Amino acid sequence: MMSNMHTSRPAWRNVLDAHLDRHSHLPSSRFVQVATVRQDGRPANRTMTFRFFFEEDCLLFTADARTEKMAELSRSPWAELCWYFTETRTQVRLLGTMRPARPQDESTLRARSRTWAERSDESRQSFTWPPAGDPLAPPPAFSAPAPSVPPENFSVLLFSPERVEALDLGSQPHARELHSLSDGVWMATRINP
Amino acid sequence: MMSNMHTSRPAWRNVLDAHLDRHSHLPSSRFVQVATVRQDGRPANRTMTFRFFFEEDCLLFTADARTEKMAELSRSPWAELCWYFTETRTQVRLLGTMRPARPQDESTLRARSRTWAERSDESRQSFTWPPAGDPLAPPPAFSAPAPSVPPENFSVLLFSPERVEALDLGSQPHARELHSLSDGVWMATRINP
Repeated sequence: MMSNMHTSRPAWRNVLDAHLDRHSHLPSSRFVQVATVRQDGRPANRTMTFRFFFEEDCLLFTADARTEKMAELSRSPWAELCWYFTETRTQVRLLGTMRPARPQDESTLRARSRTWAERSDESRQSFTWPPAGDPLAPPPAFSAPAPSVPPENFSVLLFSPERVEALDLGSQPHARELHSLSDGVWMATRINP
Repeated sequence: MMSNMHTSRPAWRNVLDAHLDRHSHLPSSRFVQVATVRQDGRPANRTMTFRFFFEEDCLLFTADARTEKMAELSRSPWAELCWYFTETRTQVRLLGTMRPARPQDESTLRARSRTWAERSDESRQSFTWPPAGDPLAPPPAFSAPAPSVPPENFSVLLFSPERVEALDLGSQPHARELHSLSDGVWMATRINP
């Protein structure tokens, strides 16, 4: 049993950083599957792009405010992220809450500008498209130019984990480590793989 | 709007086959993230290995009967699979039910034997390990030899989709196709990406 106070960078963050660093040559290593719960209680799962860390312990994502996942998250903010890192053969699961960033917060505004600036014109343009999931609109609906400033429907989401599990499949037996947040303190323990 | 009777291979199956074929040189393309709902209503997400198709429209997986996911699936069989295919830049989401295969069924027994035969000794050995998620057991608990026949806790799961969505991110605008099962008939339609 190891523990560390929740004052500085949590231990799971170092674990995740190490895997992301090892896979930085693979753009797809920034893609992670995000599970939520649908209004009817069934699970939903889709790929999202991890943008960057916000403060020491939040992961920043973006989404179109008009999408299903935003409606799901407004009903229940709980999400589980599941990464599989191909080269280190390690799975990292993060259970926590995914909430819209507070728009009035100064550091949030900076992060919003940064993630807008860092994306491609193609990505910026997608926020002008008609609502995802509706019957396919005719081609002109997809021809607006990319906006220069983030539009209203460009949402910044902060994912704050409460439970992080790393499963290393590269060793035999496999190794599994669980980090859990309890009363503001992260505890890490080794569990059966 | 396209439709096809649910008598032969459904159209989504051809879509998924094509992406799997294109990625057959990448062992990790058989790994897919599987979302379920936890007992407390929060989502869960983990990587599973897709073994092979069972009949025309089921995907076969295996699991240790003692794992959390098996408990979750026994409470609610709904799962959403999310694949991201790196080379074709396509996401395929499949919403459906994941249920234990009927043990008395002849074709199920053949599939069970096949998936046991096709796995590595390391994978077979893992079914002898102490329960996943418990506090780490001492090393001798992980040293039993691989069983030659499938043990009691080796479970075969059949995933039967009712809704399949393919999102192609390789084109601009992106393209999204939805296949849904209604009264035994698969319908496919193009929707906004």
